[in-house]
Amino acid sequence: MKDVEVVTIKSIELKNPILIEGLPGVGHVGKLVAEYLIEELEAQKILEIYSPHFPPQVVVNPDGCVRMVKNEIFAYTSDDVELLILIGDHQSNTNEGHYLLTETFIDIAKQYNVKRIYTLGGYGIGQLVENPRVIGAVNDISLVEEMKSYGVEFSENEPGGGIIGVSGLMLAFGAMHGIEAVCLMGVTSGYLVDPRSAQAVLRILREILGIEIDMDALEKRGKEMETIVARLKEMEQMQGETEPGTTIAPEDALDYIR
Amino acid sequence: MKDVEVVTIKSIELKNPILIEGLPGVGHVGKLVAEYLIEELEAQKILEIYSPHFPPQVVVNPDGCVRMVKNEIFAYTSDDVELLILIGDHQSNTNEGHYLLTETFIDIAKQYNVKRIYTLGGYGIGQLVENPRVIGAVNDISLVEEMKSYGVEFSENEPGGGIIGVSGLMLAFGAMHGIEAVCLMGVTSGYLVDPRSAQAVLRILREILGIEIDMDALEKRGKEMETIVARLKEMEQMQGETEPGTTIAPEDALDYIR
Amino acid sequence: MKDVEVVTIKSIELKNPILIEGLPGVGHVGKLVAEYLIEELEAQKILEIYSPHFPPQVVVNPDGCVRMVKNEIFAYTSDDVELLILIGDHQSNTNEGHYLLTETFIDIAKQYNVKRIYTLGGYGIGQLVENPRVIGAVNDISLVEEMKSYGVEFSENEPGGGIIGVSGLMLAFGAMHGIEAVCLMGVTSGYLVDPRSAQAVLRILREILGIEIDMDALEKRGKEMETIVARLKEMEQMQGETEPGTTIAPEDALDYIR
Amino acid sequence: MKDVEVVTIKSIELKNPILIEGLPGVGHVGKLVAEYLIEELEAQKILEIYSPHFPPQVVVNPDGCVRMVKNEIFAYTSDDVELLILIGDHQSNTNEGHYLLTETFIDIAKQYNVKRIYTLGGYGIGQLVENPRVIGAVNDISLVEEMKSYGVEFSENEPGGGIIGVSGLMLAFGAMHGIEAVCLMGVTSGYLVDPRSAQAVLRILREILGIEIDMDALEKRGKEMETIVARLKEMEQMQGETEPGTTIAPEDALDYIR
Repeated sequence: MKDVEVVTIKSIELKNPILIEGLPGVGHVGKLVAEYLIEELEAQKILEIYSPHFPPQVVVNPDGCVRMVKNEIFAYTSDDVELLILIGDHQSNTNEGHYLLTETFIDIAKQYNVKRIYTLGGYGIGQLVENPRVIGAVNDISLVEEMKSYGVEFSENEPGGGIIGVSGLMLAFGAMHGIEAVCLMGVTSGYLVDPRSAQAVLRILREILGIEIDMDALEKRGKEMETIVARLKEMEQMQGETEPGTTIAPEDALDYIR
Repeated sequence: MKDVEVVTIKSIELKNPILIEGLPGVGHVGKLVAEYLIEELEAQKILEIYSPHFPPQVVVNPDGCVRMVKNEIFAYTSDDVELLILIGDHQSNTNEGHYLLTETFIDIAKQYNVKRIYTLGGYGIGQLVENPRVIGAVNDISLVEEMKSYGVEFSENEPGGGIIGVSGLMLAFGAMHGIEAVCLMGVTSGYLVDPRSAQAVLRILREILGIEIDMDALEKRGKEMETIVARLKEMEQMQGETEPGTTIAPEDALDYIR
Repeated sequence: MKDVEVVTIKSIELKNPILIEGLPGVGHVGKLVAEYLIEELEAQKILEIYSPHFPPQVVVNPDGCVRMVKNEIFAYTSDDVELLILIGDHQSNTNEGHYLLTETFIDIAKQYNVKRIYTLGGYGIGQLVENPRVIGAVNDISLVEEMKSYGVEFSENEPGGGIIGVSGLMLAFGAMHGIEAVCLMGVTSGYLVDPRSAQAVLRILREILGIEIDMDALEKRGKEMETIVARLKEMEQMQGETEPGTTIAPEDALDYIR
Repeated sequence: MKDVEVVTIKSIELKNPILIEGLPGVGHVGKLVAEYLIEELEAQKILEIYSPHFPPQVVVNPDGCVRMVKNEIFAYTSDDVELLILIGDHQSNTNEGHYLLTETFIDIAKQYNVKRIYTLGGYGIGQLVENPRVIGAVNDISLVEEMKSYGVEFSENEPGGGIIGVSGLMLAFGAMHGIEAVCLMGVTSGYLVDPRSAQAVLRILREILGIEIDMDALEKRGKEMETIVARLKEMEQMQGETEPGTTIAPEDALDYIR
């Protein structure tokens, strides 16, 4: 077995698509957005990526069928925009695997003549977030102003400590190969799967891409989340002695916890 | 030393055997069943598998002799059925090792023209199990109904989080090579070596394979286990304040704990 | 991607330079000194070193631009001295990576005809340090007396347990290739980034190299640190029951904690 | 750098020596015995073994000189016996490294025509040991009786859980290459460096090898140890509530704790 194996599901030709990455991470923000895009746009799968650097397990579908842990790339084309969307079950489980997989993703981007990459993630701040914000990082200074015009925030100390995993590495590898790349991070607690943060990211991404996306389903999930957050706060207030920043999860919230 | 080394102990020819995997895992359910099968059927060892991905230790036999950690494949043939049974001391200790070893097992399956694989395991639920159940996962949707007819349960949320290790990976690799595969998981606490759960798995497997197996010895071990479980419960009741789901092990139970 | 990739930024020729290593480590002592040297001497970057053995993340600059984790070598030449200075964001995240990277650093040292190496680090003693001291280790016994003449201390039991990471390995690999090497370790608590310890190391290194370096900026950071240490001690005294060696960090100190 | 590098320090020819392994492990029992043998017999170093699988650090000698972590083989020859003695600073820090290094050791054994191997270790039982015992494991059943005649104990349940590291793997690899091998384990608490246990192992090994070894120095260290153990027991008795099996270390004992 090779370190990374790419299986072509469907051959397509693209002029200069935009690549969007939404692998699992903090608050599953990127994953929520990327999967939502694929569903709403009815994007088509073109590639599957396998690697012994993924966790040594399989995913069990609700119907009882298992499948290998994998990453996948979907394609969507319209008159206005060409998109490649990278999603997956897991990121690498080994140190070198992160580098090897990112290298593969950038190779793929080059094959399809990708002109720009957006990697999506969450930025965990350790406490519940009142007002969803999206912070950014780029691989070329010229992108900062452009992103600010869409409402992406840049501040000196966020994110502190760097960006871990593929969302960060793709910017660095992209720069090496002359591909512009932006990381959009929804600010989130880091404790819960966060559809509200995903909503904030999607709203900005939608504007950047200039595409129409019905956000109803994601908004509905976000509202459920708000109800839970409200209850979490009530519980915190009732417990006067709770340390700042700690969170108590009511049973309803458990579905959102990863 | 190669990543995986296969040593042939006995050359045999088979038409289209069924491969059963029972490596160590949750509750040692799979291991108990597979070893019991080998003993009762007097299966013969045909292959030994060595790897530097196994834990760096040796096994000490009761007579004081040590041997390398290994996986082994045994063969049993009768007029009705041909079986290959995979057992072992340990699974891989490294991430890549799980993939490399599974790949080897599937290569072996193809060499012997295996038509179907059953991987055996335990599904830990974190509390003592009243009524033994066997849940399933498959690598082809057509197998679900067949398995249900033998009493294997399929539910949307079990197992949550996927199947870790060789028992899961063999289904995924099998699918890639056109070999039907089923994972049978005995529901178990996850705290104890569980012969009662093994019994439930063996009962179903026996029916699937259409073979006669005397279950007396395994039943005896299961009964001992029930006595221990009964005592565990008494102890729990006496301690009113015990948290739900926690288990106190009396000394007799220690032999069953791994 | 190769295990270690060296990118030449600027070609230079040197006669027999001294190599100074200051990668991140205990108290960031070595890193503080090496970065300070580069800044004050206006050394020029000549090499960048990349590796999949570094942590799988990127560094985000204050301006929002990310860059790959890397190690870098800077050069400084004057009439009196030629210096190569090795700094970086991280050391290897894998066991083998430490060896592979050190091997590369020594290869580079040989290419530039390096005659002596100074590796800089911190030696954590688990409690606040009253009087900054610098202890040493060498790869040739003849260096001990020379170092003592500069105030470097050598004692039988310091450092106990060896020197971990590149600062240690470069001495051992250097010895194998006939390059004299000294490790200078600023004694530090191990809890805080320690500019005072860095100052003590730089003072000795400056004398060894016979170069002029304005230490004002580092002294200023050191003084801030002393204020914090003084407050830490007050707080310790107020809490009579504090265990010896434990440290309470006031909020101002947090910027110094890594 | 190769996975394992063997450097010849002195070329010698041997007829059919016995190989003794005493790398660091539980209670440093094996290491104490092997180092004591080298010192008392004035054995000569013939080989050094280096590997990037050792921990990424260097050892600092009391004189301030560092050296690479390594394993070493010493040779001793007399009219009666030829010995190769394997010692070292550390065992492998990676899973595969244990296998690769053991393979190298067995290759070396074959080159020197080794007829028998003794690996030395400690068997930790989690409480202070009253009467030093030595338990054994072998790689050929015929060796059990021979070892028993020297006072080595064999019991069905000791050691439970196998033998971890080179001491175990050398027996298994030895068996594969037709070299008889015995593991002698001094029973020890597992908390302390244990010269008394080392004494028990050496006493048996001395008889097996038929060599004269002055045990005075080791006995002296053993007596110091007994004093410490006596004090530990007093302290336990004074603290009526101490849980059975727990150990309180007085300051004098710290030198013995690893």
